[in-house]
Amino acid sequence: MNREQAWQAATAWMGTLADLDGAAAVLEWDRETIMPPGAADARGAQLATLAGLRHRHLLDEGVEEALAVIAESDDPWQVASARIAARDRDRARRVPESLVRALTEQSSRTVAVWTEARGRGDVAAWLAELEPLVALTREQAAALADGGDPYDALIDLYEPGTTYAMLEPVLSDLAQRVRPLVDALAGAGGPPLPNGPWDDATQMALAADIARDIGFDERRGLVGRTAHPVTMGLGPGDTRLSTRVDTADPLSSIMALLHEGGHALYDQGIPDDRRRTLAGDAPSLGAHESQSRFWENHVGRSAAFWERLAPSVAAAFPDAAAGLTPADYLRALNRVERQPIRVESDEVTYDLHIVLRTRLERQIITGGMEPADLPAAFDEGLAELLGITPATPAEGAMQDIHWAAGIFGYFPTYTLGNLYAAQLADAAEATVGPIAEVLASDGTAPLLAFLRDRVHRHGRTMETPELMRQATGEDLTAGPFVAHLERTYSTASVS
Amino acid sequence: MNREQAWQAATAWMGTLADLDGAAAVLEWDRETIMPPGAADARGAQLATLAGLRHRHLLDEGVEEALAVIAESDDPWQVASARIAARDRDRARRVPESLVRALTEQSSRTVAVWTEARGRGDVAAWLAELEPLVALTREQAAALADGGDPYDALIDLYEPGTTYAMLEPVLSDLAQRVRPLVDALAGAGGPPLPNGPWDDATQMALAADIARDIGFDERRGLVGRTAHPVTMGLGPGDTRLSTRVDTADPLSSIMALLHEGGHALYDQGIPDDRRRTLAGDAPSLGAHESQSRFWENHVGRSAAFWERLAPSVAAAFPDAAAGLTPADYLRALNRVERQPIRVESDEVTYDLHIVLRTRLERQIITGGMEPADLPAAFDEGLAELLGITPATPAEGAMQDIHWAAGIFGYFPTYTLGNLYAAQLADAAEATVGPIAEVLASDGTAPLLAFLRDRVHRHGRTMETPELMRQATGEDLTAGPFVAHLERTYSTASVS
Repeated sequence: MNREQAWQAATAWMGTLADLDGAAAVLEWDRETIMPPGAADARGAQLATLAGLRHRHLLDEGVEEALAVIAESDDPWQVASARIAARDRDRARRVPESLVRALTEQSSRTVAVWTEARGRGDVAAWLAELEPLVALTREQAAALADGGDPYDALIDLYEPGTTYAMLEPVLSDLAQRVRPLVDALAGAGGPPLPNGPWDDATQMALAADIARDIGFDERRGLVGRTAHPVTMGLGPGDTRLSTRVDTADPLSSIMALLHEGGHALYDQGIPDDRRRTLAGDAPSLGAHESQSRFWENHVGRSAAFWERLAPSVAAAFPDAAAGLTPADYLRALNRVERQPIRVESDEVTYDLHIVLRTRLERQIITGGMEPADLPAAFDEGLAELLGITPATPAEGAMQDIHWAAGIFGYFPTYTLGNLYAAQLADAAEATVGPIAEVLASDGTAPLLAFLRDRVHRHGRTMETPELMRQATGEDLTAGPFVAHLERTYSTASVS
Repeated sequence: MNREQAWQAATAWMGTLADLDGAAAVLEWDRETIMPPGAADARGAQLATLAGLRHRHLLDEGVEEALAVIAESDDPWQVASARIAARDRDRARRVPESLVRALTEQSSRTVAVWTEARGRGDVAAWLAELEPLVALTREQAAALADGGDPYDALIDLYEPGTTYAMLEPVLSDLAQRVRPLVDALAGAGGPPLPNGPWDDATQMALAADIARDIGFDERRGLVGRTAHPVTMGLGPGDTRLSTRVDTADPLSSIMALLHEGGHALYDQGIPDDRRRTLAGDAPSLGAHESQSRFWENHVGRSAAFWERLAPSVAAAFPDAAAGLTPADYLRALNRVERQPIRVESDEVTYDLHIVLRTRLERQIITGGMEPADLPAAFDEGLAELLGITPATPAEGAMQDIHWAAGIFGYFPTYTLGNLYAAQLADAAEATVGPIAEVLASDGTAPLLAFLRDRVHRHGRTMETPELMRQATGEDLTAGPFVAHLERTYSTASVS
């Protein structure tokens, strides 16, 4: 089999994977947007069948030789495709089907109990299902780790190429530098915007305008609405993002749009002709999150952006927005407060929540901590990092769905996104000029061009640490992010 | 393998087919409603991959023994599932993959040329692609027929259990009895409704109201909009129908809704717990069309229905509908005219178009007629049946997409739908009382209950001729349909 034949065989094989992934994404988008409630079971069965066919196709032995040939190619897309294929096939083989099924079933059960028990703070009911789930997850981690670090094996599912040993010093440095910032800034920020009402359909139209303005191509995607904002790639030429609408607060929709818009621009920036290969995607969740956070925090929380946007908001909402200045929006956005719930946290305190979860789940997977120890350890950790104590388990260790869903190793990707976004913002400023000046003179296009060049067009040809090193000139570091917080939340901007 | 094991194995196998069909339907619904234009190629690839996986799964040899066991069951759902499985597997084996691919490619080419050549009446360009397509279709028909009648083999793809020998005398009888009706009625009917405008969103809301009113369950489906109205079953609990909106004419949307509503009620009437078997569907397109035509023509063209609906239209459109009476709507609906285009034809002339096409395609497939003979034969046939001559090829043999798409044997199902609908309407009147009285006193519910009992709940356990014989007490016949036309278009109702 020569190189060309091998690449042809490999792309046919990868094309089927891409088609199955795209089809599943269509089913999921439909489910999140318009599916009638009576279809829930049928949709679950359809997705399970597609997943089963994907699994079988992933392990197809007939492609082995082709993958071996392209691994020796000098085309980085071929090499990366072979590397990712080998890793995915290896993972699928390591975890026996019986364990996959047990994990799926136990996590469904745990989520169901968690959903119901969280409200009444029933820690015992939650732990009764979490304990067997953690046991299965440890088994999965050990199978994946093959003698290596089990927690690293789980991180690797979401953030390939990054280990706890790389993360730990950066997270510690981050926590140490953010804690005094929180002391200085807690209570900063202005009042929320007036209640409006801010018309629902007008907010959706404004969201679509903002998406277009930052460079989203509507011929190759669309803006929808869901209860929880989301971005999905349904295949080349079909990138969909959603926002939510709160008629009492337009900032909810605008900031969700910018966040998902960052993900969507990344998805649209992957070269179309690579999309049917395994390398035609983002290399990790942290890399993806770096894009959403770039637009949300480094563009969306800047005075220059609101100078541009405020007139559009005023035109769309002549009554509700009457008299509001760019500074009013910024102050309403950039509030800082100590509170226990991660998903409601502001940009300054958010990563302290992630530091806590990362340390705890590391302990659970490799440090001998048992689920029963989680509630107290969580409360202690929050007190130490943020100086507050949860009033109820629902504000403490029970607050997130992740662990109940058997998802360990995912939390760090949120903070990686924040740190990489800040490193990228610094690199963008060094390359195209200060973001404030660029926005004022040329709009967002130069920023998108920078991200396209340094990040998007490379797909998954490098793992994230290398991609970001090349894009920013630096290894992972908390410095740029902390400097960004200091600038953004300086007394000048939040007073 | 005992019966229970066999049924378990067979339902697992059929469940995967049902999941793949449902997933493909989701992809198609999405494509028809919201898919961005840039996704066309990717969606085509996804659907092709699902079709390929379905084909492979259909031919899975592992299920052979289980199918043989359930074929001997005394449960009609098991027997029917085995029968349909055997037929589908036999068909898939008979037509070699190279022929399937050649047909797909040649029909794509022919549709592309037809789309472009029809407007300028370029018969030669159309024929140049139609000729090889007809050659391939004859090859397909011969492969499927296995020594039997090739045109019957094509009909069987859409209308299993029905043959040309069963159809021909009924179509001839129909043509003979409808031609004098056309002579008597041409020009009958009233003026169209005033131009409105009839607000777009209000029409969509009214369409949803009508769907609910005739018994459509919105928890298990939804009403959308597409350029060409359509109904799709996306799986148990997920039946979707669409309508179109013409802001100059609300009847367009209402009649499309009733037509698709008939299909959708049928789909929702298939027992959910049978949906993942091959018997959990309608037995043929004609059976499906009988339901759409029942609601469109036997309910929607009745004075009693418009007595019910007119107040809702007036409430929704206080300006546009001011002063309109039920009779005004009926007269605007029930116009009769001789004109060459099938899809724009009224209820009286419509089936003469189908008679013509059925005779022509029978000649093409088994009678030695060549595509080059089609234009003249079409014009002659239309003159004979309807007394008019097409002014251009676009009004003649080139008007429909079917033949260009390689679809032969499908046309008769439209007329089968009309005839069965009339037979069912007579049976309903004999069972629950005159439709006019039922609508006036109890609304549409007794009619739906009748159709559920006689048609929907049986799924595909019988072939259509037997299903309709049991439902109506008669074999296929044109009598009830002609009588319906005479009643509906009598001078009293159309003056």
